[in-house]
Amino acid sequence: MTAHWKQTHKNMMLFTGRAHPELAEAVARELGIEITPTTARDFANGEIFVRFEESVRGSDCFVLQSHTQPLNKWLMEQLIMIDALKRGSAKRITAILPFYPYARQDKKHRGREPISARLVADLLAAAGADRIVSVDLHTDQIQGFFDGPVDHMHAMPILTDYIKSKYSMDNLCVVSPDAGRVKVAEKWANTLGDAPMAFVHKTRSVDVANQVVANRVVGDVDGKDCILLDDMIDTGGTISGAVGVLKEAGAKSVVIACTHGVFSDPARERLSKCGAEEVITTDTLPQSKEGFDNLTVLSIAPLLAKTIHEIFENGSVTTLFEGQA
Amino acid sequence: MTAHWKQTHKNMMLFTGRAHPELAEAVARELGIEITPTTARDFANGEIFVRFEESVRGSDCFVLQSHTQPLNKWLMEQLIMIDALKRGSAKRITAILPFYPYARQDKKHRGREPISARLVADLLAAAGADRIVSVDLHTDQIQGFFDGPVDHMHAMPILTDYIKSKYSMDNLCVVSPDAGRVKVAEKWANTLGDAPMAFVHKTRSVDVANQVVANRVVGDVDGKDCILLDDMIDTGGTISGAVGVLKEAGAKSVVIACTHGVFSDPARERLSKCGAEEVITTDTLPQSKEGFDNLTVLSIAPLLAKTIHEIFENGSVTTLFEGQA
Amino acid sequence: MTAHWKQTHKNMMLFTGRAHPELAEAVARELGIEITPTTARDFANGEIFVRFEESVRGSDCFVLQSHTQPLNKWLMEQLIMIDALKRGSAKRITAILPFYPYARQDKKHRGREPISARLVADLLAAAGADRIVSVDLHTDQIQGFFDGPVDHMHAMPILTDYIKSKYSMDNLCVVSPDAGRVKVAEKWANTLGDAPMAFVHKTRSVDVANQVVANRVVGDVDGKDCILLDDMIDTGGTISGAVGVLKEAGAKSVVIACTHGVFSDPARERLSKCGAEEVITTDTLPQSKEGFDNLTVLSIAPLLAKTIHEIFENGSVTTLFEGQA
Amino acid sequence: MTAHWKQTHKNMMLFTGRAHPELAEAVARELGIEITPTTARDFANGEIFVRFEESVRGSDCFVLQSHTQPLNKWLMEQLIMIDALKRGSAKRITAILPFYPYARQDKKHRGREPISARLVADLLAAAGADRIVSVDLHTDQIQGFFDGPVDHMHAMPILTDYIKSKYSMDNLCVVSPDAGRVKVAEKWANTLGDAPMAFVHKTRSVDVANQVVANRVVGDVDGKDCILLDDMIDTGGTISGAVGVLKEAGAKSVVIACTHGVFSDPARERLSKCGAEEVITTDTLPQSKEGFDNLTVLSIAPLLAKTIHEIFENGSVTTLFEGQA
Amino acid sequence: MTAHWKQTHKNMMLFTGRAHPELAEAVARELGIEITPTTARDFANGEIFVRFEESVRGSDCFVLQSHTQPLNKWLMEQLIMIDALKRGSAKRITAILPFYPYARQDKKHRGREPISARLVADLLAAAGADRIVSVDLHTDQIQGFFDGPVDHMHAMPILTDYIKSKYSMDNLCVVSPDAGRVKVAEKWANTLGDAPMAFVHKTRSVDVANQVVANRVVGDVDGKDCILLDDMIDTGGTISGAVGVLKEAGAKSVVIACTHGVFSDPARERLSKCGAEEVITTDTLPQSKEGFDNLTVLSIAPLLAKTIHEIFENGSVTTLFEGQA
Amino acid sequence: MTAHWKQTHKNMMLFTGRAHPELAEAVARELGIEITPTTARDFANGEIFVRFEESVRGSDCFVLQSHTQPLNKWLMEQLIMIDALKRGSAKRITAILPFYPYARQDKKHRGREPISARLVADLLAAAGADRIVSVDLHTDQIQGFFDGPVDHMHAMPILTDYIKSKYSMDNLCVVSPDAGRVKVAEKWANTLGDAPMAFVHKTRSVDVANQVVANRVVGDVDGKDCILLDDMIDTGGTISGAVGVLKEAGAKSVVIACTHGVFSDPARERLSKCGAEEVITTDTLPQSKEGFDNLTVLSIAPLLAKTIHEIFENGSVTTLFEGQA
Repeated sequence: MTAHWKQTHKNMMLFTGRAHPELAEAVARELGIEITPTTARDFANGEIFVRFEESVRGSDCFVLQSHTQPLNKWLMEQLIMIDALKRGSAKRITAILPFYPYARQDKKHRGREPISARLVADLLAAAGADRIVSVDLHTDQIQGFFDGPVDHMHAMPILTDYIKSKYSMDNLCVVSPDAGRVKVAEKWANTLGDAPMAFVHKTRSVDVANQVVANRVVGDVDGKDCILLDDMIDTGGTISGAVGVLKEAGAKSVVIACTHGVFSDPARERLSKCGAEEVITTDTLPQSKEGFDNLTVLSIAPLLAKTIHEIFENGSVTTLFEGQA
Repeated sequence: MTAHWKQTHKNMMLFTGRAHPELAEAVARELGIEITPTTARDFANGEIFVRFEESVRGSDCFVLQSHTQPLNKWLMEQLIMIDALKRGSAKRITAILPFYPYARQDKKHRGREPISARLVADLLAAAGADRIVSVDLHTDQIQGFFDGPVDHMHAMPILTDYIKSKYSMDNLCVVSPDAGRVKVAEKWANTLGDAPMAFVHKTRSVDVANQVVANRVVGDVDGKDCILLDDMIDTGGTISGAVGVLKEAGAKSVVIACTHGVFSDPARERLSKCGAEEVITTDTLPQSKEGFDNLTVLSIAPLLAKTIHEIFENGSVTTLFEGQA
Repeated sequence: MTAHWKQTHKNMMLFTGRAHPELAEAVARELGIEITPTTARDFANGEIFVRFEESVRGSDCFVLQSHTQPLNKWLMEQLIMIDALKRGSAKRITAILPFYPYARQDKKHRGREPISARLVADLLAAAGADRIVSVDLHTDQIQGFFDGPVDHMHAMPILTDYIKSKYSMDNLCVVSPDAGRVKVAEKWANTLGDAPMAFVHKTRSVDVANQVVANRVVGDVDGKDCILLDDMIDTGGTISGAVGVLKEAGAKSVVIACTHGVFSDPARERLSKCGAEEVITTDTLPQSKEGFDNLTVLSIAPLLAKTIHEIFENGSVTTLFEGQA
Repeated sequence: MTAHWKQTHKNMMLFTGRAHPELAEAVARELGIEITPTTARDFANGEIFVRFEESVRGSDCFVLQSHTQPLNKWLMEQLIMIDALKRGSAKRITAILPFYPYARQDKKHRGREPISARLVADLLAAAGADRIVSVDLHTDQIQGFFDGPVDHMHAMPILTDYIKSKYSMDNLCVVSPDAGRVKVAEKWANTLGDAPMAFVHKTRSVDVANQVVANRVVGDVDGKDCILLDDMIDTGGTISGAVGVLKEAGAKSVVIACTHGVFSDPARERLSKCGAEEVITTDTLPQSKEGFDNLTVLSIAPLLAKTIHEIFENGSVTTLFEGQA
Repeated sequence: MTAHWKQTHKNMMLFTGRAHPELAEAVARELGIEITPTTARDFANGEIFVRFEESVRGSDCFVLQSHTQPLNKWLMEQLIMIDALKRGSAKRITAILPFYPYARQDKKHRGREPISARLVADLLAAAGADRIVSVDLHTDQIQGFFDGPVDHMHAMPILTDYIKSKYSMDNLCVVSPDAGRVKVAEKWANTLGDAPMAFVHKTRSVDVANQVVANRVVGDVDGKDCILLDDMIDTGGTISGAVGVLKEAGAKSVVIACTHGVFSDPARERLSKCGAEEVITTDTLPQSKEGFDNLTVLSIAPLLAKTIHEIFENGSVTTLFEGQA
Repeated sequence: MTAHWKQTHKNMMLFTGRAHPELAEAVARELGIEITPTTARDFANGEIFVRFEESVRGSDCFVLQSHTQPLNKWLMEQLIMIDALKRGSAKRITAILPFYPYARQDKKHRGREPISARLVADLLAAAGADRIVSVDLHTDQIQGFFDGPVDHMHAMPILTDYIKSKYSMDNLCVVSPDAGRVKVAEKWANTLGDAPMAFVHKTRSVDVANQVVANRVVGDVDGKDCILLDDMIDTGGTISGAVGVLKEAGAKSVVIACTHGVFSDPARERLSKCGAEEVITTDTLPQSKEGFDNLTVLSIAPLLAKTIHEIFENGSVTTLFEGQA
């Protein structure tokens, strides 16, 4: 026999794009490892160049990018990093997208539209990603856009634990800012002491983005301390409008909670002035409290670190979110 | 030059599985064509055999199957038909699934579960389907499970036109039987004269299917004529329970509407006795009014026929559902 | 360097569908392991739901299903299990199909037919199977339908060892029930002491399944103890007819042997009354001796267990059947 | 609307490799077209270069190659031609392989062997072939190796028509030279007046190619005019040995028929001296009667031409071989 | 027969991204058609939304984007447009990238680098592009990165025709600014009256982009009118440095020609002051003469329009560049 | 829990085709392992048969073939070996092609040509190769033709080390035999003490292969000791012509160096008589000094062995060629 069997080893490597390296550093600290040194720069015409400073051959590689502005650039950077890992003989490539870009475009609202959230999954697969990790996808179905394992983490326990530690549960009402989030609100209500629910009934124009035609509250919020939640807040128009509608409907107070604080202009101004007592979010995207006094940022890094650890060690990720998922 | 250019022609052919041939026949009548004769039979051990009686070479082939019980058999029959068309040199193969099977399994609720709705799309693609036509998918995102064109038709106009023609709009309230359908109910409400809305706040157990823990109505239904809607009704437990909850909450009357009347036992008994004035559905699945006096069945065949016609003629399918989608 | 190399481990997990769990249990006993607990149930409309009760992350997973009636359901269940393993991050997925369904449809007999045996391979691949294990494929070429490793096990040694232990080799004649099995019969003849051969020359109608036009024996069976063999017996019409033809041609006795005892109605009646001294088969499909006194069932479980063991341990499967393959 | 619809046209183009251009020319004459002029040459180190002298854009392209010696070169040439057509924007590419190379390697006889016939299908697909046309595949299952349409033509009617026109049917016996061809011999027997059958029972050594261990005739050939048939004859050892065995068993005369006359050394000498009255074959491979007086070559060109015509015109290829297939 | 054959039609549609709509408009004018109206806008967080205002079903679609800054955004927009066309049932999708982005990253210079030019081809394929049109790829081999037709157009005739019309051929010398472009310079030299050649021998640092270590002219440029050419000019450092080196080596005059005028800062300043008499480029990227007096812009639109026309009409694109390619 | 985790092992196996087994043996000696015994033979009609004599299950397999004449046969043999490894459950398959066949056809020179170098990559992938190792590809971009890791080794250090050890660096000039190799020559010049450069400006006819129209030297070679280099030398026409041109231009001496000595007729005669002092090459292809006295062959085996070792051990291949690549 010509066989010579040797013991096999595996190696975890963590890589970060340039969009939000602080998040990757926090994850690395949790894991007790170093981020692999990477050269990344832009050519004068905007083409991105990437090179890893160490061999990635045979390693279990995790590529974290935060899809903040300029979002398309950071997506392309992540794709290029994945291509370089594939060609550099990485054993397995896990793309980590704490905030999944284009998640709102997860279906065709009308004919001749793209399904850009599926396209993102296809691009990651084309570049060479073997698996995806993300947090609070806009809809759970996006998991099915990728032909491979998707570890879908939930930030709700982080957010609800904070709320429970700070606010009384006695007078709460969980409110969805629109009809599409009622299902998620129901999960929160179940977690927050089986609280009563409400939602804002609103009509968006199909032709003009974000143009709300009318609002009314369905459910009873009179005298209630409202927890108004969403997976993501972009310009804050809907959510700050909802605060107003709730107040008009008699709400005693409103706290806003979301996983992904995109906070595009003029969100910061709107949310700091909308009358909400507190706006709670996580750092899946880079955050700043400057000029946004009522903002609270909870760290997603421990959740990501635990997920990476379980994936590498072949542990169970399910246990990380069991009960809430 | 050795080229000899000749004019090109195209040919539409319609095929049906054995699950619900009456629907295909109705579609064929609308189109003014014949269904292509097909030999289909079961071997003694349950293996399905299919053979087409005419050449399919170069044709634009539409394969309609209705996914009623035994559902897995009819799905396999459709896959086998598609394989035979592919190997028989069909030019283009469109799989028509008026009721998309496994649509409820469109995400992982917990770890180590399948996403069977994505699997169905993958199986259709593996067999050779170039495109899919379906009606009222359980969630719109299922469109993104297929890497190709999906024409997603909506039965809502058929159902709401019927409701408008029979009931007064003055006292209506549109009700979703659970939190997950509120978005759809909002579309109906907009269509039905901007009617007020409500939903039943309910908790399903994760461990035991369909076990509802508690119900309460969110929104005001007192004295209202309620339109209670869903995309599909299976055993009818949720929906008939919702009728009771609405009546307790003071609803004056309840009409049930759904696109896909699966009506597995004991749905027929539950729905005929639940107190609803009428149960409206379509024939995406085979229907019978026997012992189900308050059932009304509207035909989906004209919508499917128009869709096939537009696909074959390269017309716009969007115009078939514009305004509601 | 940021690399931290750790030793790698592997884990064998065995899963079974609901078609014939006794076979999987017998295999597990041989391997000295437990079957991984799995929740599987049918929704009211026949949709199958599957969930594994333990993490499968990083494991070498073997999914055994026996394709008995209702065959299409059990195939779909196996596909769904594979999809769940893929999305649950299994390291490698081996589909075990002791009886490969649709194996008889391994070619187009005429135009516009499917090649359903290839379709089955494509569906397994689409769901996520990395490799296939099967026993006595209807034709060896089916191995080539899958783009990956197929471990093709042979039950012949199990069957011929039994025959050798029970019957005298002196007066044997190996008989194929039709022209297509003569090659296999030749292998048996070589194994059974270089016995003489014969076959039944028969014409099946192309248009009507199983309609035999005429039969005559080619080869000399007068006064012989005939071993009549086939890979599978479905309704038993061909094989019991062959017994009659052999007896008419002067055969002294007939013993029937097959790997896959499908035994669809009225096979059990036909075979118990056809004049064969014994009908020998294996438990690739669930078997019962009730009302079938001359049936002998040999266990395939040790062969499957050894195969799984060798695959997991990177041993040689070839040695399991060398000499006969 | 910005649409400007114009009538569509299609164009048939026929290409030939350098292995056997006479066959392509005969096919072109039957079709009444010209072969597209092609530059093909070998670089000094054996690399093949191909360029088409006319635009192939949008054309329905048929690439005929005859897989004679040096077989691997001609296969590579056909793959290169297909690649050039794909990159030159051909609309559809049909690979015509009258003799399918590596067809004998259609399964693993033992472990660690290739399935080269599947590999050939994979290579054709990788190069860009959309469909395959072949004649009398070694086994029908090879159709299933390609994921697309395979038009499998049969030369049997050409051969049996010739036999019927020249020989009396009264005293015929159809003989298979080995156990694996008995099924095919049965089809011939049915076509040739329901003639009686026989076969030569032979054992090939697994370790040494073509080493026959023993021969005996199964069936009665005494005093018969034997038609000894095979799909292909390579070195002629088996078939000329079979002639001897048949003569010893009392055969009155023997005529040999095969579709593919490979006739590698020393086949021509063996067959011209083996005692067969006539050896009938076709020109799927280039043939010469020199020093092979009892050879008769029938032309396959009309069958190929009709097949191409039906494919281009979307007619039914099934009708070309119905009744025999 | 159930067949109903109808004549087939085809339809050309032209789409443009938002990067450089003027180029698409010029192409449309040449073709005598309108660009299909398209809604495209950015969400507040930078996600791009696209919708076509007319049905694209069954159409031959050409999607033109100019990859200027912000380059990654415009690439993503083109991918999204292609996805929308695929899902909207376009018959064929041709991506037109006059300047192919990331073309300089067409190989790994060292380990652990991406091959971003291949990645771009993979992303286009993943989105659904059937074919690519580009102009003067950085290296010809990029054609081979796409598994389908690539129509590679050449701007050299446009540039050399202009030079021939304006400058005397008597005293020309064709100069490559570095070793990698000498092959292209040779083609130009052959076209420009078999002019003598030279190149600048330069060493780029591997570690720091664009850091040139040393320069010397190979070939004789003393007293010559030099045509200094490149496929693209980015920051202009290399090329303006080459002008200086040529002047030092005695060149009488220098004219610069390139297909792709990227002109990232500080190219415009460098090139207008480097001593070149004229800088000639095309509008594959948007150009402005402001503060760049010696810039001449030739239009690429007629070449693109002719290419689209030939692709749509199945004509020969080869004739558009024969002789120079 | 049913999990039983066991330690994992890996195994390196080396296989060789029949084209140049001496090279594989030299590599095996360097690695201290044995080549896995393999049965390979030709059927009479030229079909290749391969079988491995040991189990390959779970092994890390390296398949070395040298693409000498008959080149297409050896390529097919390598593909068949890869298919057999894939079906035999190899864990990972690395195809080693020291001389990459068809590398010169890496682009379309004109329309309707293949890109055969891409085709070779596609065929390797279709057969089942996971990765490729090659030496001095004709162009670096060929790395991008394969969708996976390509380890591209460089023989330059081997060649330049030899030159430095034998010749004085004082009077050297590095010469490229044509415009396309100037970039490579520049790398050599940098390595050989920053030597001056020159190239031969030559026009090949597009229509007739290798027909050179005219030659002139660009750069100053008068009185110089010229190192004339190329990646491969086929018939030697270009390179021996270049020697003459250099001598006419005053070169004092010429040494020829190339990685791949193809040396098709009449290269050996031309090169031994062209006036070059020495012709230096490697054994990527089998070499013989018979009748070729000025030939020096350096061994590539140590480089290949080190590469295989690093791949198997997950080391860095980059370090093997850093500085020169």
